[in-house]
Amino acid sequence: MKILLTIAYDGTNYFGWQIQKGQITVQEEIERGLKALFGKAIEVRGASRTDSKVHALGQRATFSVETTIPMKGLPHALNNHLPKDIRIMRAEQVSANFHPQYSAKSKTYCYKIYNAPIINPIYNNYAWHVKPSLDISAMKSGALALVGEHNFLSFCATGSSAKTFVRNIYSIEIEKSNTGNGNGNENGHQLIEISVTGNGFLYNMVRIIAGTLAYVGYGKISATAMPKILAAQDRTKSGITAPPQGLTLMQVNYGFEYSHKT
Amino acid sequence: MKILLTIAYDGTNYFGWQIQKGQITVQEEIERGLKALFGKAIEVRGASRTDSKVHALGQRATFSVETTIPMKGLPHALNNHLPKDIRIMRAEQVSANFHPQYSAKSKTYCYKIYNAPIINPIYNNYAWHVKPSLDISAMKSGALALVGEHNFLSFCATGSSAKTFVRNIYSIEIEKSNTGNGNGNENGHQLIEISVTGNGFLYNMVRIIAGTLAYVGYGKISATAMPKILAAQDRTKSGITAPPQGLTLMQVNYGFEYSHKT
Repeated sequence: MKILLTIAYDGTNYFGWQIQKGQITVQEEIERGLKALFGKAIEVRGASRTDSKVHALGQRATFSVETTIPMKGLPHALNNHLPKDIRIMRAEQVSANFHPQYSAKSKTYCYKIYNAPIINPIYNNYAWHVKPSLDISAMKSGALALVGEHNFLSFCATGSSAKTFVRNIYSIEIEKSNTGNGNGNENGHQLIEISVTGNGFLYNMVRIIAGTLAYVGYGKISATAMPKILAAQDRTKSGITAPPQGLTLMQVNYGFEYSHKT
Repeated sequence: MKILLTIAYDGTNYFGWQIQKGQITVQEEIERGLKALFGKAIEVRGASRTDSKVHALGQRATFSVETTIPMKGLPHALNNHLPKDIRIMRAEQVSANFHPQYSAKSKTYCYKIYNAPIINPIYNNYAWHVKPSLDISAMKSGALALVGEHNFLSFCATGSSAKTFVRNIYSIEIEKSNTGNGNGNENGHQLIEISVTGNGFLYNMVRIIAGTLAYVGYGKISATAMPKILAAQDRTKSGITAPPQGLTLMQVNYGFEYSHKT
């Protein structure tokens, strides 16, 4: 039987999802856990190859095994064999032809920016620290130009082997939360969260979008320049690649309802 | 001149605030930074002796030095000599008779509970994972009994050398934020934040309050039993001491306005 896992992890101490020689990766830890649980080597296939230091709340991965463990109990059973910074949140049976990546209808990533002169250090591993004050309405206006079906070559890391650079971004939502600690301390929490949903993403695409929108936020790039940057199909026209620790894979949507509720 | 610092830190990798032989502490790191900056040994005095793994957003500490560095520039200058998980947020000059602990009118601590069957691992070091579903309104009702001036011996770690166990709690606020990730994943964020403001706190007092309110939240202690628990003046009548990583020192209030705005 084929099983689909929903996985959350703190990516701080991992060299990303994908197994790589000489590096500790999330996929490797899960395969190690499955081997401990089922007593044999089992390969998992992930929905997204998150990079080093990138986090996930809703990563998905499949594997095949014959087992009598009920799906409801599988997360707990597997979590017992995993490090604390990787948690299986859910398990459910899927059909044999289900593919965690190709069956996905959309994915949602969230990019966090900590916008203040000095960062609250508990965000060091979970946000990008941007010191200049960001103009959220300019960022929202710039983001609007990216929504829809476009060639995103300008927002793809150079050297990508993608067959096509056309992707469809369904939405970009930008929210700012500002809850100072009352100490007259404006550095309480000034978190900007950029949520991007699309049918697929090129390599580093969300991080380049976040980096470019930060440039828009402090006026280095004009919001009105975004259509031209897209049209240029040239990576050098967009902004920097925002650092990995701000990124979280929030959700992979397969367009079906869960059969199991925990 | 006497200088008051506002300090934020991620307490994960520290053995608390107070200098202790053979352990790495926040106070030690700040004194090390001051020595690097000013070229001589300088002692700092903190407002609160936070425990191992406890965080701070608004810790305060004083030290004395003669310097021409403007207060506005001091945080940046000192941060250059500190580890990334300790940040000076602000510096201001205070009068010679100011004492970071005794001059405090009130302090606010926040205790975070992650309430879900499985924790989102990015909260491992920043919240207490409580699996049974907590009844927030019962917790609020139980908390109400603690507000006001009481003898808090039942909420103080045994062996305390405090001269009096009478403290005044001005407020306890309990908020729940629930922002699932939409993956049908009820484990998105189910964070309960207990904010306690008082004129002073006994050893482990906030953690025992949080542990006791969690007991109230899942029915192990009745909210109506709280006055009796207080009146007993007996540590064995209250709940467990909640673990340290959920606690953050949010604010120390001295009842004066800041002279410096950053």
